[in-house]
Amino acid sequence: MDKQRFTKPDGRALILYSKDKLGQVGDVPSPSRVPHTANPHLRWHPFRGEWISYAAHRQHRTFQPPPDYNPLAPSPSRPSEVPVGAWDIAVFDNLFPAFAAGAHDPPALAVATAPALGACEVLVFTQDATASLATLPLWHLELLLDVWADRYEELGARPDVAYVYAFENRGVEVGVTLHHPHGQIYAYPFVPPVPARALERERRHYEERGRGLLEEVVEREAEDGIRVVYRGTHALAFTPVFARYPYEVWVAPSRAVASCASLSRDERRDFARALKTVLMKFDGLWQRPFPYILALYQAPTDGAVHPEAHVHIELYPAYRMAGRLKYLAGSEIGAGVFTADSVPEQTVRDLQAVPVNVDG
Amino acid sequence: MDKQRFTKPDGRALILYSKDKLGQVGDVPSPSRVPHTANPHLRWHPFRGEWISYAAHRQHRTFQPPPDYNPLAPSPSRPSEVPVGAWDIAVFDNLFPAFAAGAHDPPALAVATAPALGACEVLVFTQDATASLATLPLWHLELLLDVWADRYEELGARPDVAYVYAFENRGVEVGVTLHHPHGQIYAYPFVPPVPARALERERRHYEERGRGLLEEVVEREAEDGIRVVYRGTHALAFTPVFARYPYEVWVAPSRAVASCASLSRDERRDFARALKTVLMKFDGLWQRPFPYILALYQAPTDGAVHPEAHVHIELYPAYRMAGRLKYLAGSEIGAGVFTADSVPEQTVRDLQAVPVNVDG
Repeated sequence: MDKQRFTKPDGRALILYSKDKLGQVGDVPSPSRVPHTANPHLRWHPFRGEWISYAAHRQHRTFQPPPDYNPLAPSPSRPSEVPVGAWDIAVFDNLFPAFAAGAHDPPALAVATAPALGACEVLVFTQDATASLATLPLWHLELLLDVWADRYEELGARPDVAYVYAFENRGVEVGVTLHHPHGQIYAYPFVPPVPARALERERRHYEERGRGLLEEVVEREAEDGIRVVYRGTHALAFTPVFARYPYEVWVAPSRAVASCASLSRDERRDFARALKTVLMKFDGLWQRPFPYILALYQAPTDGAVHPEAHVHIELYPAYRMAGRLKYLAGSEIGAGVFTADSVPEQTVRDLQAVPVNVDG
Repeated sequence: MDKQRFTKPDGRALILYSKDKLGQVGDVPSPSRVPHTANPHLRWHPFRGEWISYAAHRQHRTFQPPPDYNPLAPSPSRPSEVPVGAWDIAVFDNLFPAFAAGAHDPPALAVATAPALGACEVLVFTQDATASLATLPLWHLELLLDVWADRYEELGARPDVAYVYAFENRGVEVGVTLHHPHGQIYAYPFVPPVPARALERERRHYEERGRGLLEEVVEREAEDGIRVVYRGTHALAFTPVFARYPYEVWVAPSRAVASCASLSRDERRDFARALKTVLMKFDGLWQRPFPYILALYQAPTDGAVHPEAHVHIELYPAYRMAGRLKYLAGSEIGAGVFTADSVPEQTVRDLQAVPVNVDG
């Protein structure tokens, strides 16, 4: 993998990754040359015990893009976020970050406040605006795992970053406005509530049993077999017996590894294969692009040791059946209780039945 | 308030409430005469430490209503859920409950399972299909508080119910398919994760300070004033300084009271006034029906004493600005971290500026 770092005219960082040697790239652009400053702040929610990020600068967007404008594609004639060149994956600082290294002087309020330190990065998965993670070749998904590993190590090493979280929102159904294939990385200055609660339970399990909770779940799902979507030498994709979303799928290495950075080459290859299999099945299910949220969980980078952590991806589909969205409403949002119309054993059968050829 | 109980032809309960004497009602209907059995079950999510409810019977709906069909309006010629009569608010058992008293024999699986005991009720707010909570007169909202109080006491007294949660999903944007004004009550056999976490923090605060967390928040917001939407003798409506959603509003009695059942007549009257004010401002903001989730939090009915609890309503709007939905995506869903484009002090100003006349 080749990696080169640049600075945009507005001061933000750009990093280009390529499988082979990168070679020459064109001018590194940004939509504006005005130095970019972001100053998000945090407020403490005393009932939830959570930090909320406020990025009020987002309201002051001066740049109004035309409807067909794609800032994630190289475009010599229009303001773009990425340059012309032989890169495979591009990473740059989000123009309107909810977390930023330069955050400072939060307002004094009736609740605790703090600067929203950290980072928000955009990952352009490919130069091909018509592609998706499901259609990219296996080597490209493997490169994405390498990039996730690199971002984990680089951002995780920063003193203001306690958790590196990679995700993809796919589809207008989950709020995506730019259709060029891309994901994001949020580097939080704290361990966020959802992984924090999971890690607490994983740690308790690890201390009691001497091995990881997810390691055992993967083993049990592999043995049981009925909810398995992909079975490889080093990775398993499955709908967990306790899935909350219809068609929810988890992708995990069999070995309890803390992050993408600790995966061996063979493990990355099989993990990429597992992920591509699932995403192809998603798109094949109703013969149309399948919207989802992809969440990549890794060990915190908070300085503590996390033998309980086990890197994996959770995929939350937006639909509960063809054309019917799964709404999170009163029970899910207000009470935190998920209610499902179907059992995991039913929805996974539909996925199992979709034929895919990941090498095609 | 008059209250009368009936049994539907399929065995489900129906309760009619009216401000004045109810008088004679027509035949009590149900869409089908086949005895209704529901058997939802729970599975334990070991990473989230939560129960998930699976109601697979929901897939087997035999009744396919015509597009203009409104089962929440009295209708002598078509299958309806409610009878003809002078009732003001009707309550009946949900046809496809995620929680039910009759739940039994959950499947044996690799995770803990349990019968999904409890109840799911539908509350028809009015016979007028064109009304909404915002347009109902004050006495009708006060009656709704009486009904919520009654459901809290009746359901809360059941040994299988640990938490009585009332909510309204309003608008297609939050997944509503029936447009007749209605809400729901979920009576859970456990204290759900969201209120459980809030109560834990409220309890800690109560033990340390000798008074309620929300009591202090209400006092401070009333003093501060800049985020207040309604100020009455007994109730306050405000956008909390730590609001997660744009235009989020909380409605609370000033006095730390555990549930609707413990509110005095004067407090109910002022609470109804506060709620109507907020909902009229919502609809007035962009001169169109304003979709939201309304969540009513009360003390658990788990047998323990809860001096830390303080009944209140939280309203989560679906839009972050006119025509732009607030999507819960990668950060909110996967990490549990809310990111806002605006600060509470901005959005509340828009609400404050909407003139309303609750007595009109």
